[in-house]
Amino acid sequence: MDTILLDHGSGGRASQQLISELFLKHLTDPILHGLEDSAVLDSQKGRLAFSTDSYVVDPIFFPGGNIGELAVNGTINDLAMRGAEPLCLSLGLILEEGLALTDLELIIKSIAQASKDADVPIVTGDTKVVPKGKADKIFINTSGIGVVPEGVDISTLNASNGDVVILSGTLADHGITVMTSRTGLQVGGELKSDTMALHKLVKSTVEMLPKAVHTLRDPTRGGLATTLSEIAKSTGLCVELEQTGIPIRPQVKVACELMGLDPMYLANEGKCIMLVDSAQAQQIVAHMRTMPEGKDAAIIGKISQKHLGKVIMTTEIGGSRMVEPLSGEALPRIC
Amino acid sequence: MDTILLDHGSGGRASQQLISELFLKHLTDPILHGLEDSAVLDSQKGRLAFSTDSYVVDPIFFPGGNIGELAVNGTINDLAMRGAEPLCLSLGLILEEGLALTDLELIIKSIAQASKDADVPIVTGDTKVVPKGKADKIFINTSGIGVVPEGVDISTLNASNGDVVILSGTLADHGITVMTSRTGLQVGGELKSDTMALHKLVKSTVEMLPKAVHTLRDPTRGGLATTLSEIAKSTGLCVELEQTGIPIRPQVKVACELMGLDPMYLANEGKCIMLVDSAQAQQIVAHMRTMPEGKDAAIIGKISQKHLGKVIMTTEIGGSRMVEPLSGEALPRIC
Repeated sequence: MDTILLDHGSGGRASQQLISELFLKHLTDPILHGLEDSAVLDSQKGRLAFSTDSYVVDPIFFPGGNIGELAVNGTINDLAMRGAEPLCLSLGLILEEGLALTDLELIIKSIAQASKDADVPIVTGDTKVVPKGKADKIFINTSGIGVVPEGVDISTLNASNGDVVILSGTLADHGITVMTSRTGLQVGGELKSDTMALHKLVKSTVEMLPKAVHTLRDPTRGGLATTLSEIAKSTGLCVELEQTGIPIRPQVKVACELMGLDPMYLANEGKCIMLVDSAQAQQIVAHMRTMPEGKDAAIIGKISQKHLGKVIMTTEIGGSRMVEPLSGEALPRIC
Repeated sequence: MDTILLDHGSGGRASQQLISELFLKHLTDPILHGLEDSAVLDSQKGRLAFSTDSYVVDPIFFPGGNIGELAVNGTINDLAMRGAEPLCLSLGLILEEGLALTDLELIIKSIAQASKDADVPIVTGDTKVVPKGKADKIFINTSGIGVVPEGVDISTLNASNGDVVILSGTLADHGITVMTSRTGLQVGGELKSDTMALHKLVKSTVEMLPKAVHTLRDPTRGGLATTLSEIAKSTGLCVELEQTGIPIRPQVKVACELMGLDPMYLANEGKCIMLVDSAQAQQIVAHMRTMPEGKDAAIIGKISQKHLGKVIMTTEIGGSRMVEPLSGEALPRIC
């Protein structure tokens, strides 16, 4: 056998073989190896964070990563955005009949590596197979549990007038990489996804100044513009951005111009927005820059009461414009 | 708009509209309504159970249920099979462009109702959309967190020589209903899925006799034969079944014969296998029969050392046969 067959999803012998010969070979957590209906974990001190994300990115392999590590890092980041320390992940696979087992193994290896690097084990899983033409190669769901340390309270609703807006690194790398992978567009300079787990960056920043970090969000689908619009809308405050402050790689900027895409709306998969107390903002950026995940961190704006519920941006040429959430632009299967 | 568009998955305005006008209308948990990157829950006393399952059943509506309530009940049951009390669920949707919004709303309503009936809220979610032809209407992942009460220890590995095997109700209802729905086969007597949450049945049984319940498993994909084979294999013990003791509706038996399917291999979605101390077995069955979820509960066999690692069955005509796990029979998209 060199491709996925329907029988691999029937729950019988072929399913067991796939699990034992491929999945458990790479995913080594002893709780997962118990193969029970659910994982049982030690009791935890602290509030629990819980998050889920399905990944349907096309193509499944792209410069800088693949759907597997994207799924691990993405859910870890969703947990980290509430200040939680990720405890474990689940892995739900939907496979299309005919998927090459070599591709599946590459993805599982990459999941195993990302999980190991992040120190967040996969403890429970599920695999379904659908007939050829009823899915597209592989869809992955990861859900995750995290623990919020005592005293940590991070939420969109904690954003305050006067807060400084930090972006942890360069804009739009994942989105433009996936879009150009599909079209085959070449630009001078490498484009690659920024898929990366941010929980260590968040943890060390929050441990340093627990009260100063008010809000964390990762600008994935819909990009920076949409995520900031959500913050403005749900808090009723204004986000004021300085376009010149937003870090972006030159090749990303060029590729966006060539494709007619605004990097403000493209997905990021290893970046976070932090709203922090203005008095500690410089110290926080300096600290973030000492870590690889935050080496390009920059202050990109502030929270004010100028246009309530809106995002406004001072542009590179000194003008001012409203930044609206993504609307009517279908950018499907970006993550 | 009356169907799902690609833009509903882009993370922008259309996504927000779908979430607020359809999902949040029916799914009412305040934590979900926070729309943060992850849900934050109170801290919990006790070990945590964690489980995930993706649902790709075809057709998405079938007699007795639909993919939505199946997804809620299925993950609740996986948690219950470790003796955990389910705390909350996540909901990950993968939608095909063109899915009728009326169908989606029926499914979401059904998810909301099942979650309410079970008293297990949906606290976090995610929605992706893929182009027409890249999925089949709707795939659902639910993951769940449960809490294992102190003193409860239920695991496949706790099965012991001499244990009595109880099945909580009739065999193969879900599997045969889905298979006949696809073919349009009509039999005398109604066929309908047994999709049902079992956590209340488990809780009341375990509370009554916490030490007597050793192992719980739900015989979903692969059916009773495959699940019992897994128990025999992982414990090294023998499962001895009495075919005449296994409850099955007459119309299910007839439909299985007409379709050439063995009910021992068909999926159940509202049944569990309990391995219990022989001294308390009668009391447990009597108790289960007082509850609607267990009204047809029956003793179907015992654990012995007769054929180590194997399942054997005394047939209706008094012979004895080995029961093998499902092999080489593709029964795709049954759940």
